[in-house]
Amino acid sequence: MYQTARQDFVSARIDRRQLLKGTAAGAVGFWLSTYLGQSAFGQADSSGADLIFHQRDPLNAEPPLGALPRDFITPNKNFYIRNHGDIPAIDPKSFQLKVEGLVETPGAFSLDELQKRFPKAECIATMTCAGNRRREHNAFQQVSGVQWDAGAIGNAKWTGIKLSDLLQHCGLKEGAAHIWFDGMDLVKAGAGMTNFGGSIPLEKAMQNDEASPGALLSWAMNDAELSAEHGRPLRGVVPGYIGARSVKWLNRIVVSDRPSPNHYVQSAYKVVTKDEDIFKAEQNPIYRFPMNIAICDPAPQAKVSAGMTTVRGYALPTGVPDAKIREVEISTNGGRRWTKARLLDEHTPFCWTRWEADVPITERTSLLIARAADTTGGVTPDRANWNLHGYLYNGWHSVPVSVSG
Amino acid sequence: MYQTARQDFVSARIDRRQLLKGTAAGAVGFWLSTYLGQSAFGQADSSGADLIFHQRDPLNAEPPLGALPRDFITPNKNFYIRNHGDIPAIDPKSFQLKVEGLVETPGAFSLDELQKRFPKAECIATMTCAGNRRREHNAFQQVSGVQWDAGAIGNAKWTGIKLSDLLQHCGLKEGAAHIWFDGMDLVKAGAGMTNFGGSIPLEKAMQNDEASPGALLSWAMNDAELSAEHGRPLRGVVPGYIGARSVKWLNRIVVSDRPSPNHYVQSAYKVVTKDEDIFKAEQNPIYRFPMNIAICDPAPQAKVSAGMTTVRGYALPTGVPDAKIREVEISTNGGRRWTKARLLDEHTPFCWTRWEADVPITERTSLLIARAADTTGGVTPDRANWNLHGYLYNGWHSVPVSVSG
Repeated sequence: MYQTARQDFVSARIDRRQLLKGTAAGAVGFWLSTYLGQSAFGQADSSGADLIFHQRDPLNAEPPLGALPRDFITPNKNFYIRNHGDIPAIDPKSFQLKVEGLVETPGAFSLDELQKRFPKAECIATMTCAGNRRREHNAFQQVSGVQWDAGAIGNAKWTGIKLSDLLQHCGLKEGAAHIWFDGMDLVKAGAGMTNFGGSIPLEKAMQNDEASPGALLSWAMNDAELSAEHGRPLRGVVPGYIGARSVKWLNRIVVSDRPSPNHYVQSAYKVVTKDEDIFKAEQNPIYRFPMNIAICDPAPQAKVSAGMTTVRGYALPTGVPDAKIREVEISTNGGRRWTKARLLDEHTPFCWTRWEADVPITERTSLLIARAADTTGGVTPDRANWNLHGYLYNGWHSVPVSVSG
Repeated sequence: MYQTARQDFVSARIDRRQLLKGTAAGAVGFWLSTYLGQSAFGQADSSGADLIFHQRDPLNAEPPLGALPRDFITPNKNFYIRNHGDIPAIDPKSFQLKVEGLVETPGAFSLDELQKRFPKAECIATMTCAGNRRREHNAFQQVSGVQWDAGAIGNAKWTGIKLSDLLQHCGLKEGAAHIWFDGMDLVKAGAGMTNFGGSIPLEKAMQNDEASPGALLSWAMNDAELSAEHGRPLRGVVPGYIGARSVKWLNRIVVSDRPSPNHYVQSAYKVVTKDEDIFKAEQNPIYRFPMNIAICDPAPQAKVSAGMTTVRGYALPTGVPDAKIREVEISTNGGRRWTKARLLDEHTPFCWTRWEADVPITERTSLLIARAADTTGGVTPDRANWNLHGYLYNGWHSVPVSVSG
């Protein structure tokens, strides 16, 4: 029997953690209240939680940073959740994906039809929120929005079909240039509600490389059916692009000559310093993510011993197919000297690599700093440009430590 | 009598420099050959030239850096020249600016009609090439194109009419969203030739603030009629945008629902790491310039004495109306300590400020480094992202020096 999304989500959590007793609703209320409203900063390893919740409504959570370098593939229980509205209640029996716009044969497909009619496709890709590390923008000026630490990122194996196969099946008409994604989640917009939506250029949608397709329509994550909070029954997955383009609860695709008019394409998810039309007109929607870096272990304010200490984290290359991490470097003295880190993972297109470095800690060490560069000339700069909505923070990542003995 | 553009350009140079004798053509040939093919690096003050020429055909030149901090307004003789093709020969008597596309009343205007029919407008604005400092991208991987040092920038007073006045006169139709600029200069493109062109969003074109209009149609620079190499009889001037949007020898404006299809909008002047359609599709045309910084004095490899030395240069805020330079800092020890510079110019929208700083030079000093930040949260990062065409280099600016005594 199909449960409502919220019940289902709650019970999934309960099953997974096997921690809390009582009714599902009561348990999750307690669990959420433990973390809601608290800073994620400095709680990474002491909390022992799978996820740290920033908001309950809509649901927004990231793992404690210490969990991220444990595995190349992020376990679903530690995968960040980024929602803009309530998780929609969807009946998988009646669910259909519509394809409309500049196509020869518009259509509507049940999940079963998608699975039977098109070849199954799989890819591993890192998903990251454009707002990952948002809180670091506050150093210049406070930004609104979910105050993400560096955990709004995860790496997963996605299973579904290639978007290019579906579009070829439907047939593209002349003038096709952009693919719109509409989700079923509703978000407050002015006096009314609008659905969340995304958009990607046609060239990206039609990439059909086996290991790194331009986009998947996905029903499974790490070999498990998508959970409700991650977009069940169907979501887009766009490797190399910010997470907002990987629309969850996807039920409509429109082929058009221009980007989607959706709020999350035309207004949000743009790098602007003022909320004015001229600033938005000057900027493209953010598609690709820039490279990024984070120290995940030790946690901020952790006590470390003088001597050699191993530092661990992740580095993400720029979201283009050929970008590989070229170097990760750690400084313990404010950027004067840098120690090269070891990369722990084989290069997989559009995926992070984990890294570790043994660095010298002295009694004068107060800050660990990490920076990185990739093979396409992408860099993590010492400081990143501030912007109103706090996107794309990718400056050097600093973690304060206190040295004992 | 009207001369051909090339003759006229030559005679203007000769008049200005009053250096060389003989026929104009012979003189300029000699003059150009003195600098062509030579590195501009390290010649700034020793050459004594007004401009250092990178190319003769098309004509591309920048001033020696030492000339830039002398004046807030850059003298025309020191103003960089950036051309993509030959300077077109234009008869000002028959010249007309056409206005077409989504306007109620298409029209064609002689220069005289533009001057008589619309209010005169003036503004001071910094013009900078998107490729300014291009050669610094080579540190990661060689980029093609004119190998600009940090002199592809200048600040001038522009006289003309507001683009918004002209567009209001012609009347905008529904759907108008972008303004195309077509120049009369022809550039090789594949087997044929194309004209140089630009494009700006309508919101920018319609800004009509007195001190900082969105765009001017300009016939004079620093109170002198535009010289042939700077676009006579008419050019666009778009404060805050890269120089490529300020189209010279402007003779056609098209109002459209989309950006211009011109090569210099759709293909060149985009930040890409590969020359492939998907990379271009992911990127907007570059409009605004990011903030930038340069040390202009001392020149690279200059001998400086131990003790306090005054360093001079320019800093450019991000190309938005409210951006002001917040701080300029100089380091003499690789970025460990920074000395605040004094800003020398009152804030003028879309203009650079010159700065100077007294810094301690010791026998161990080998490099001067400058960085800056603006009031909108723009920064000059320690390193900038490499891109195929070498645009927007705005990392920390470094100048090697050798210390005597």
